[in-house]
Amino acid sequence: MTPMATRSPLAPDTFPDLPEIAGLRLASAAAGVRYQGRTDVMLALLDPGTTVAGVFTRSATRSSNVRDCEAKIGGDSAGGAAIIVNSGNSNAFTGKAGDGSVTRICAAVAEAAGVTEARVFTSSTGVIGERLPDERITAVVGDLVANAVPGALEDAAGAIMTTDTFPKGSARVVEVDGQEVRIAGIAKGSGMIAPDMATMLVYIFTDAKIARPLLQEMLSELSDRTFNCITVDGDTSTSDTLLLAATGQSVEITERGGAFEAALGEVMLDLAHQVVRDGEGATKFVEVAVTGAATDADARKVASAIANSPLVKTAVAGEDPNWGRIVMAVGKSDAEADRDRLTIRFGDIEVAREGWVSPDYTEDAGAGYMKQQELVIGVDLGLGDGAATMWTCDLTHAYIQINADYRS
Amino acid sequence: MTPMATRSPLAPDTFPDLPEIAGLRLASAAAGVRYQGRTDVMLALLDPGTTVAGVFTRSATRSSNVRDCEAKIGGDSAGGAAIIVNSGNSNAFTGKAGDGSVTRICAAVAEAAGVTEARVFTSSTGVIGERLPDERITAVVGDLVANAVPGALEDAAGAIMTTDTFPKGSARVVEVDGQEVRIAGIAKGSGMIAPDMATMLVYIFTDAKIARPLLQEMLSELSDRTFNCITVDGDTSTSDTLLLAATGQSVEITERGGAFEAALGEVMLDLAHQVVRDGEGATKFVEVAVTGAATDADARKVASAIANSPLVKTAVAGEDPNWGRIVMAVGKSDAEADRDRLTIRFGDIEVAREGWVSPDYTEDAGAGYMKQQELVIGVDLGLGDGAATMWTCDLTHAYIQINADYRS
Repeated sequence: MTPMATRSPLAPDTFPDLPEIAGLRLASAAAGVRYQGRTDVMLALLDPGTTVAGVFTRSATRSSNVRDCEAKIGGDSAGGAAIIVNSGNSNAFTGKAGDGSVTRICAAVAEAAGVTEARVFTSSTGVIGERLPDERITAVVGDLVANAVPGALEDAAGAIMTTDTFPKGSARVVEVDGQEVRIAGIAKGSGMIAPDMATMLVYIFTDAKIARPLLQEMLSELSDRTFNCITVDGDTSTSDTLLLAATGQSVEITERGGAFEAALGEVMLDLAHQVVRDGEGATKFVEVAVTGAATDADARKVASAIANSPLVKTAVAGEDPNWGRIVMAVGKSDAEADRDRLTIRFGDIEVAREGWVSPDYTEDAGAGYMKQQELVIGVDLGLGDGAATMWTCDLTHAYIQINADYRS
Repeated sequence: MTPMATRSPLAPDTFPDLPEIAGLRLASAAAGVRYQGRTDVMLALLDPGTTVAGVFTRSATRSSNVRDCEAKIGGDSAGGAAIIVNSGNSNAFTGKAGDGSVTRICAAVAEAAGVTEARVFTSSTGVIGERLPDERITAVVGDLVANAVPGALEDAAGAIMTTDTFPKGSARVVEVDGQEVRIAGIAKGSGMIAPDMATMLVYIFTDAKIARPLLQEMLSELSDRTFNCITVDGDTSTSDTLLLAATGQSVEITERGGAFEAALGEVMLDLAHQVVRDGEGATKFVEVAVTGAATDADARKVASAIANSPLVKTAVAGEDPNWGRIVMAVGKSDAEADRDRLTIRFGDIEVAREGWVSPDYTEDAGAGYMKQQELVIGVDLGLGDGAATMWTCDLTHAYIQINADYRS
């Protein structure tokens, strides 16, 4: 197993204060699924009146847990719901046995928590292809239910970590119709996929009251602008799961586009950025901002090609203002592009325009900029109004070390 | 500039003996484009009666040279042709100035060699975004023409190297209608793209007589099964160029599918494999063989996802039989896949089948296999007859070192 890495240099200084969400209770436990001497299971209990929305990996080899969540997500949670998550074993590619593990865990939680099995959502994260010792999880379910208390989100964030170097949380409190609405979320993930310990998992809770279809619509759309805009290594997990539960104990939200949705978007973007900041071996946080594309889809292709290019990411690691590699990535992106209309910027520094290096650009200016820990690579294609932004990190020796040097 | 790396551990022992091709003369020179103390320009002169076919990068930011070659490739070379190639500077993303460099080089070669400008093909490989000092190249054109001799392919292979650690050549001699036909080729490339020194360049010569449309058809189709099936880092060069010239001084080939085409395919595959074997930092040569896909296109998606996955490639570097990462890559490939029909093999060792690890598989067997320098990862999707094979190398600390640790 990979030894616990030192805290990422890009990590926030402290875990944020997360508000209690009325209608939500949490508990964590050490079930010994794989790790010893730490918690590895978390349970969230959601009171009756809750609505739940979800977004899941599209991987063709996604885990039994993901398939089970997908099947359940459209159902009604008026009688309450539960989310149980274990770290240490992903229950992915474990054949029919994996389906059985999910069934037994759901049954145990349903019985202990007094909800129906159809309202129990599970996630598993960790090693692929080994049988999930679900009996160790079901053994602690009774205690988890008994110990569940409001708050306790920071402990939950710790229990779901695998190769993460810091627990991830974010919250916003907004006023809607003169009343306070709270949003608090936790995430794990050290890349879109971590070594053996695959997976990004995100759980967000709010006390707002929102009908399930509206909740799902907001979640899906905001995902496309937050979690679907980050990449560490371009590899996609078999288990990525994002669940959003609204307990319905505060104001009712009935429309798109208000203060609540804005705050939810902020929480999601904050958590997404924290996942990048914990990218394996990361030393730089990079925003890739593409404008002037023929379409938004083209802008996305260009941003993705840059953010996933090993040559761009190693140049960033080496603090090398190697804009030729950005030209290369634009070229390979399959988006409409014209060499003679292309502009490239490092932060506010114009590097290249009209198909060549800018007359005022100096390598010293570029090299000085690249020494920063937070970078913005700007590309304007000069063709239209299409725009997209993605976030990524650099590709360093530590990434190779984490993924190659240690046997899993 | 990146210091010359030590010879790849995957390199062939020696440069092969390449036969002389009647109707072809070659010369190399040290023009000092960027490198000192080595040759950096090669010229190939092709006698009247030659036909030329070509395949080029599809990058939207491809170089002036590539655009010029594309415009010329359909023309008639009955009056003879020339190919001139420099290393050290790619003339890519050099704006309108790059077009001027190509024009001046073509004019100089045309005058000295007595061919029309429309029959001069140029390639440039090396740093992106710096003005090509074409006057240094045109200054040596007279000597190159004067010194051109039959043979001399090994010197030419040396002159076009950038970050390559060994020159690349391959040849076949086949009998067609009782007469000998010779094929000889050279290549450079240390990945689909090397650091700043972008580009894969390939020049293949034969004394066969073949009409241009047939030559182009063979080249395009064989490219899809050879050079388009290799990847080092998934990044695409702005300058990739493959030219095939048939001097017409031996037997005429009028049909597809014979001994000549088979031999040409072997030369192309050999050169393609040599490029992978010189992949930056490579220590393992990996064949990814996908079968049982719903379509050939799906098989290709799966092979590409595996061959380009940083997590698979770092696992190979670490000699870790981490088949969970192969499952992940299958899942993210966007090809039709069914967990419960998937079979994975390392060489002859069955690792996983029916959605889980194979009952007889042991980690020791897998770990032992991964210690080999040449690996075959086999994936059968169990759905249909679609198949594809790709070749790649591992992702090591040396790749990061070459691309991040040295300023270009």
